[in-house]
Amino acid sequence: MPNRYAYLGPEGTFSEAALRSLPVAAGAVLLPQPSVPVALEALRSGAADGAVVPLENSVEGSVTSTLDELAIEQPLVIAAEVYLPVNFSLLVRDGTPLAAIRTVATHPHAEAQCRRWLREQLPQAEVVLVGSTSAGAAGVAAGEYDASVSAPIAASAYRLTALATDLADNPGAVTRFVLLTRPAPPPPRSGQDRTTVVAFIRENHTGALLEVLTEFAVRGINLTRIESRPTKELLGRYCFSLDCEGHIADSRVGDALAALHRICADVRYLGSYPRGDDRPAEPVRHGAADEDFVDAAAWLARVRADGIS
Amino acid sequence: MPNRYAYLGPEGTFSEAALRSLPVAAGAVLLPQPSVPVALEALRSGAADGAVVPLENSVEGSVTSTLDELAIEQPLVIAAEVYLPVNFSLLVRDGTPLAAIRTVATHPHAEAQCRRWLREQLPQAEVVLVGSTSAGAAGVAAGEYDASVSAPIAASAYRLTALATDLADNPGAVTRFVLLTRPAPPPPRSGQDRTTVVAFIRENHTGALLEVLTEFAVRGINLTRIESRPTKELLGRYCFSLDCEGHIADSRVGDALAALHRICADVRYLGSYPRGDDRPAEPVRHGAADEDFVDAAAWLARVRADGIS
Amino acid sequence: MPNRYAYLGPEGTFSEAALRSLPVAAGAVLLPQPSVPVALEALRSGAADGAVVPLENSVEGSVTSTLDELAIEQPLVIAAEVYLPVNFSLLVRDGTPLAAIRTVATHPHAEAQCRRWLREQLPQAEVVLVGSTSAGAAGVAAGEYDASVSAPIAASAYRLTALATDLADNPGAVTRFVLLTRPAPPPPRSGQDRTTVVAFIRENHTGALLEVLTEFAVRGINLTRIESRPTKELLGRYCFSLDCEGHIADSRVGDALAALHRICADVRYLGSYPRGDDRPAEPVRHGAADEDFVDAAAWLARVRADGIS
Amino acid sequence: MPNRYAYLGPEGTFSEAALRSLPVAAGAVLLPQPSVPVALEALRSGAADGAVVPLENSVEGSVTSTLDELAIEQPLVIAAEVYLPVNFSLLVRDGTPLAAIRTVATHPHAEAQCRRWLREQLPQAEVVLVGSTSAGAAGVAAGEYDASVSAPIAASAYRLTALATDLADNPGAVTRFVLLTRPAPPPPRSGQDRTTVVAFIRENHTGALLEVLTEFAVRGINLTRIESRPTKELLGRYCFSLDCEGHIADSRVGDALAALHRICADVRYLGSYPRGDDRPAEPVRHGAADEDFVDAAAWLARVRADGIS
Repeated sequence: MPNRYAYLGPEGTFSEAALRSLPVAAGAVLLPQPSVPVALEALRSGAADGAVVPLENSVEGSVTSTLDELAIEQPLVIAAEVYLPVNFSLLVRDGTPLAAIRTVATHPHAEAQCRRWLREQLPQAEVVLVGSTSAGAAGVAAGEYDASVSAPIAASAYRLTALATDLADNPGAVTRFVLLTRPAPPPPRSGQDRTTVVAFIRENHTGALLEVLTEFAVRGINLTRIESRPTKELLGRYCFSLDCEGHIADSRVGDALAALHRICADVRYLGSYPRGDDRPAEPVRHGAADEDFVDAAAWLARVRADGIS
Repeated sequence: MPNRYAYLGPEGTFSEAALRSLPVAAGAVLLPQPSVPVALEALRSGAADGAVVPLENSVEGSVTSTLDELAIEQPLVIAAEVYLPVNFSLLVRDGTPLAAIRTVATHPHAEAQCRRWLREQLPQAEVVLVGSTSAGAAGVAAGEYDASVSAPIAASAYRLTALATDLADNPGAVTRFVLLTRPAPPPPRSGQDRTTVVAFIRENHTGALLEVLTEFAVRGINLTRIESRPTKELLGRYCFSLDCEGHIADSRVGDALAALHRICADVRYLGSYPRGDDRPAEPVRHGAADEDFVDAAAWLARVRADGIS
Repeated sequence: MPNRYAYLGPEGTFSEAALRSLPVAAGAVLLPQPSVPVALEALRSGAADGAVVPLENSVEGSVTSTLDELAIEQPLVIAAEVYLPVNFSLLVRDGTPLAAIRTVATHPHAEAQCRRWLREQLPQAEVVLVGSTSAGAAGVAAGEYDASVSAPIAASAYRLTALATDLADNPGAVTRFVLLTRPAPPPPRSGQDRTTVVAFIRENHTGALLEVLTEFAVRGINLTRIESRPTKELLGRYCFSLDCEGHIADSRVGDALAALHRICADVRYLGSYPRGDDRPAEPVRHGAADEDFVDAAAWLARVRADGIS
Repeated sequence: MPNRYAYLGPEGTFSEAALRSLPVAAGAVLLPQPSVPVALEALRSGAADGAVVPLENSVEGSVTSTLDELAIEQPLVIAAEVYLPVNFSLLVRDGTPLAAIRTVATHPHAEAQCRRWLREQLPQAEVVLVGSTSAGAAGVAAGEYDASVSAPIAASAYRLTALATDLADNPGAVTRFVLLTRPAPPPPRSGQDRTTVVAFIRENHTGALLEVLTEFAVRGINLTRIESRPTKELLGRYCFSLDCEGHIADSRVGDALAALHRICADVRYLGSYPRGDDRPAEPVRHGAADEDFVDAAAWLARVRADGIS
């Protein structure tokens, strides 16, 4: 039986494109899902073997529903990541001129990334927020809206015309997607890995975050993302969602995570996986390589046993 | 002429309730606005003298459009803050039973805060994301949707029935609203103040955030919020939106902001204002009071002048 | 054959008193030695089974010859420590009045601790520095000097008279002595232990010392002594001699020493032993107890194995 | 009337050589003094206009009597520093062969620096500690000792023969001398300056030293010496004697000292003066130059006044 992969649908989304870029998609059954929670539920229930959803965007920031699902709901892990450039089109029914557009339907994240373009080019139009950029295109096809801001692929899917392309306010914008699986051992080290964790700090003061950052810094580990998220309890109580360079099998990364486990109220591991971007990892700092940890452990064992350092 | 205050509308939103709780609202003209950017534009253009918009929510986290407007667009400052408990109702046209609901319209933040309730109580319903919880209620009245998740006040405004109340998954949830003005000197110190800034770090490594946090820590200043936000350039490049205890007129706060100005690529001041929550400020650490800074400056001047410490 | 213990002699020194206060001295042969290096050489060569020498004094600071012997010469470890109150007498030949004293012989450390007393009470006298306070008393007995600043016990040993007692400028002054042995496993944990190490930093900048201190701080380990010592190479190149609370068998202490081993050019272990003072140890910080380290290691092993945190 | 300069005598000491290397010595009256405290007392009383004494040695470490006089007694400041290579000779009366030497007189610091040489070349000789290397030579001339370890210049002063030269165990050893004056404004900035202070920490824990070091680190100031010294009260209570790069007139240095003044129990300024060694200062870190402090102060004043950052 082929593998089945859920993704944030409907068909023609960027999530589908991200999924199709992964080797595991070849020959697999791809299952579009109406929302991030539903996609992840399909994975948790066993209806899917993996799920591709957006995690963050260089303009809009983190996809909070993905972050919160991963931080709080039943555990899943990241098995791979994919970066896709952001590339929106303004889709209309054939024959609609720009001046006639009164309503534009799109997803909130797309709206955020094309806000300046919409304000300058369509100042008269009302922006209607809908559940996905594909749903916007479907609404245009059904005559509900005059235009949509959608992925280019949606034009053919819904027989619409692109009145403008490359709408994004920031030309270099990119979205990061993750392939999630049920908890499983990580893929082996590739040498260019990333590890994701959520740290629930015990006390809520500046010092607590400083302590978390210091545990990475003293082991020479570079952080590539840090997001504070409310813990759903009180305003002013946060957890921190973090990406760091390296693999949990690396001594320095494992040691830092164990230290976090000691000082935090809780730590949730969200996977180690090969980096999907092209930025090279920072070189490993003196004293932070695996052999340094092995040497130090052997040294300590010897000193404890016979008192000779 | 009475003052005019914009708020995130339409009428009957939580933003309106927040605005009405402020003394400045008495006798003022209140102007509902379709979106956060439009409300802030009304303020910048002079069409309004102030604007009330949501900044963060204890469940959903920061309102990113507010944060990003404040961080990047033409400067505004926070003059006051208001905390309101979150309290949603499920509104329907009179006679609609729970079992008949196929579509529920609401704002993405309301959806996030009632996600569990909706999943458990209305598993069959499709959730349609619209621009505001009031817009959802309007759509129900117009027959477009079967139900909306809205503020209780919207029931009477749109002649709908509350089929359920207190829908929020987290009973203690609260939203923080801010009153924004064009740049102006801050209100005088109340003794229970907060200061908001955005720090654009010069280099993007763990050390840069550690440096920013350390400048607050060495002066004994407690942070009450820290949010990383993408800088709209590249994934992995962030600025940090921060709230700290104290007032820019406090020596320790002013000194910390000046230090940030030295080490960061840019620092944007977003106001000092009385705290709207009931949490007492941390006691001022030894050496961090205004008189300590005055003493130290006098001591340094004396030592520089005559060499006697 | 009874055990033999060397000590900094001659007979009647504070070192002898410190040695006699230890249970191991009962029934042992005590061997006075002319200097710290000679005493330690007796230990290294096997001529003695232990050696008691002064390590630091609350007025004069560290005994640098002891520190440097321990840091650089062939390894020894501390097996116990003893604190003795400082208590000097001014010894003269019977009949010598204060006004007739022209020369006072004493050891440099005794001179430092009685400097004010000597300046005020014997302004006319020349202070002659000799190799030990006992040697000063011997010189008085031999007619070489008019008076000596010596341990009270030296009066009877050399048939001298105490013209004044309790000369120390600081009444609470105390000296810390250590019992050294050849490298051996430490005594078991007493619950009130101290550990001594020397850290040779790799690079000589402020950051290097900060790094060393941070490795202790992140594990909640309190330092009770820190001394910079030149490394005998260049002015401005230092090693750091440190005492910390806890025993090398404690997880947090062992982990901190292993971390130092990774980041430093070299780390020399100088022993874990019961504290000889009466100050209670700081309570162990949250997350720094042995069971926290055991839990964290088990957690990490599980996460590495199956991806579930 | 010519200026008068005290120095640690007697004639022919390294201190005299250090003093003679300074431009101020030309045409001045040079006054040898029997000890560091006496030399400094001559300065404090006005009998001398300056005093040259040793501060630290690359082998033996700090000269504790100098450090403690500067830290605790009536204030003085450092106006200049001089580095001299260490260079000892073994002086005897003409005709004494090495094998006949039974006693060697020298100062404790010289003994420490030639310990290995003495142990290997004169294992049979007793080392007698005297008040200065010159006093040792005088004692040899008087027939009290067989040999002395002294400065080469003492040979001619006391008509002795150098049986061996360059005795120091570490060939690169160097001693740092300081020219002290009564408190006075520092010399103007040379661009290669050093500043010396003593910080009396308020509480005696690891964190206190970390705080002191952090105040320098956050302002990008490199420390070139750090010494813990007992405060003469209790074992385990320290002050820290520090040298940092830069001049008190530098914004970053003045700001760091003012911060120390706020967080410490006391701070004693001991002078800013041109460096006497040939090591280049570290480049000034981004944000730590004088113009950065001026900019930041102007920025803060503007923000406080009108709310625009």
